[in-house]
Amino acid sequence: MANASPALLEQLGPESIAVMRRELGGAPDGWHIDEIGDGNVNLIFRVSGPSGQVLVKQAVPYLRCVGESWPLSLRRNFFEFSALSEHARVVPELLPKVFAFDAGSAAMVMEFLGEHVILRKGVMQGIRYPRFAEHISDYMAKTLFFTSDLFLSAGEKKAKQKLFCDNVDLCKITEDLIFTDPYRIADKNRWTSPGLDSLAREFAEDAELKVAVSEMKAKFLTASEALIHGDLHTGSIMVSQTETKVIDPEFAFYGPMGFDVGLLLANFFLGYFSQAGLAKNPPDYEQWLLDQVVEIWTQFEQKFCALWDEELHGDYLPARLLTPGSARAVIDRVRRDYVARLFDDALGFAATEMIRRILGLAHVADMDEIENADTRARSEARALRAARELLVHHRKYLRIADVLELMRRERVSSAT
Amino acid sequence: MANASPALLEQLGPESIAVMRRELGGAPDGWHIDEIGDGNVNLIFRVSGPSGQVLVKQAVPYLRCVGESWPLSLRRNFFEFSALSEHARVVPELLPKVFAFDAGSAAMVMEFLGEHVILRKGVMQGIRYPRFAEHISDYMAKTLFFTSDLFLSAGEKKAKQKLFCDNVDLCKITEDLIFTDPYRIADKNRWTSPGLDSLAREFAEDAELKVAVSEMKAKFLTASEALIHGDLHTGSIMVSQTETKVIDPEFAFYGPMGFDVGLLLANFFLGYFSQAGLAKNPPDYEQWLLDQVVEIWTQFEQKFCALWDEELHGDYLPARLLTPGSARAVIDRVRRDYVARLFDDALGFAATEMIRRILGLAHVADMDEIENADTRARSEARALRAARELLVHHRKYLRIADVLELMRRERVSSAT
Repeated sequence: MANASPALLEQLGPESIAVMRRELGGAPDGWHIDEIGDGNVNLIFRVSGPSGQVLVKQAVPYLRCVGESWPLSLRRNFFEFSALSEHARVVPELLPKVFAFDAGSAAMVMEFLGEHVILRKGVMQGIRYPRFAEHISDYMAKTLFFTSDLFLSAGEKKAKQKLFCDNVDLCKITEDLIFTDPYRIADKNRWTSPGLDSLAREFAEDAELKVAVSEMKAKFLTASEALIHGDLHTGSIMVSQTETKVIDPEFAFYGPMGFDVGLLLANFFLGYFSQAGLAKNPPDYEQWLLDQVVEIWTQFEQKFCALWDEELHGDYLPARLLTPGSARAVIDRVRRDYVARLFDDALGFAATEMIRRILGLAHVADMDEIENADTRARSEARALRAARELLVHHRKYLRIADVLELMRRERVSSAT
Repeated sequence: MANASPALLEQLGPESIAVMRRELGGAPDGWHIDEIGDGNVNLIFRVSGPSGQVLVKQAVPYLRCVGESWPLSLRRNFFEFSALSEHARVVPELLPKVFAFDAGSAAMVMEFLGEHVILRKGVMQGIRYPRFAEHISDYMAKTLFFTSDLFLSAGEKKAKQKLFCDNVDLCKITEDLIFTDPYRIADKNRWTSPGLDSLAREFAEDAELKVAVSEMKAKFLTASEALIHGDLHTGSIMVSQTETKVIDPEFAFYGPMGFDVGLLLANFFLGYFSQAGLAKNPPDYEQWLLDQVVEIWTQFEQKFCALWDEELHGDYLPARLLTPGSARAVIDRVRRDYVARLFDDALGFAATEMIRRILGLAHVADMDEIENADTRARSEARALRAARELLVHHRKYLRIADVLELMRRERVSSAT
């Protein structure tokens, strides 16, 4: 979209242009600009020069997928930049490089990831990423641990938390679109009709679900545990056979750790339930997706727990509280309770993500690209029923194997 | 202490002096200034003029009860002022009036409460305050409800929360003195020796206690539920037969509601266990103290629950989520779960307060003024054992009557 190009360069400040000269070579006159974005919230440009490419991500003052009727603060790019900077302290290799933050134009100049694809697209094509579970468990374990009270003093944490207290517009999207609208009749909802009409009605009348989702929303509103990504689905992750890059943390704020873990697992479950309807990948790809869930959780748990032994320097459980005789037992017990709660939270949040992607405003391509509406409704109904069970009864699921069993059972259910 | 007087007036800004002229009459030359403070953290002056009196509360840059080795931000007066302003929106009648906040001198010019006494002093003298439970339950129900996600939108709440994210010095006092030091051998600890020597050693080695206190500390660090007072003991409350005024919210921040409720109840339990040692009040005064616990909790619960019916306008449980058929059932269930968790938190926090007031740095006069050390140790040991049981097993105590039974049982225990 060439008409956007001159406007973009005129809006960027001198620091951004200087950085782009370094990365791209040549002069601005000779750079080529393509608008390549398909995101819900921002404009995305690729700028190419003689010696390289950069990506420019620019905020617009409304939610793009809804329109100007849903205004959004331009400052979200600042929060994205701040979250990337914070997380880059611990997992730089798993993030795109940021070359410049351009506050004046609400834009960020970043590394262009030409060899990576969006994980969701890879999953829809049945591609396996052998190192993904290793990378994403690393990302979650480190970003969550090192921004929490487990590693930071309470004062250091609150200084970071304070900055993200302003990121209310983006949190409100989550509060409305994940925790509210899918459980009521709302204009912005959409679902596969008529196949899911009766389930959508049932969900909107389901008192148990309203109670259960309120509990998860309460955690989202009040549990200031770590600087979470806030939107960690398979569309926020770019992968290759050897690398993983987590992008788009504009929803970042101090929230519950289980939210990141849960969203990621939910998107693998959605991918799993979509396979039968997409009907184009090898039959054992479903099993690969479930294996990823096990690998992601298991490696995350192992790495997160290991950090308690190596880096427990925060105010949460200070060394001076412990005595040689019982330190091991106390840490083990506190950690076991912590991880059990985190797992339980992750299951609850996973269920809310599965439901909102089928009954709410923003769907996933995994399901949307199932062309036949009846087939799509069948895949979606299976996922919905599994998610309802998980949301209402997550406390009963104590191991990841129990959750997989639930998913497998619903996968072969014949009910619609 | 007349030598402080001229210094004080020279430090105050013109706005403060103008306000004092209005309240006191006459001219600054003729005002009389007494330093009357016995607080742990601030200088307190009474300034008297021809037509009235005001109180001036000034921060010093260190923790007064420890000395200059424990530096404290002067901004704590700003947080106290901010909390008083916020809470005055809903319970002005239960707070001292603030006439001026003087940022330049870290001072606040306030109403002088000449006819009220510190509740702790009244309790030690066996005085009954017939309206206290009514007032303090009102204070807690309204300050906690109206500053939480139950009443506020998430954005409104985060704007308030953000301001108090800077109040880290005072939160650190709580983190150290309530949740850490009493459970280890620490220089700042003190206890009645030798009577409590063996219990203090046991507590410092008690792995179950360390696990249990870590759980409560985690809530203090991460549960951003409401703008809590943060130090709601009987020394932070002034009473008369007809009025109640809650003072000193300089520890205020967005934290767990149960912390305020728990600290208050704990101080009544400490008062209860101290009566046998003080041995100067009528025997049925112990029962009056336990009655207050029941009244405070019961009235708080009733008022807090009533606000859900009248003022549930926040993002926590938005009306649009509910449908006519099940709204009643959903609200009742979410509220029941909420209040049960709040009660459980309050018991856990109450236990930590009881323990730290006996084994930690800052004690309560109720116990300290028991002259005979053996008698004092006996009262304190009873309170400690009750608190240990409550901290480790608070989840088993589902009704306030169960907690009273525990207190009564330990009250007559003969073990030391």
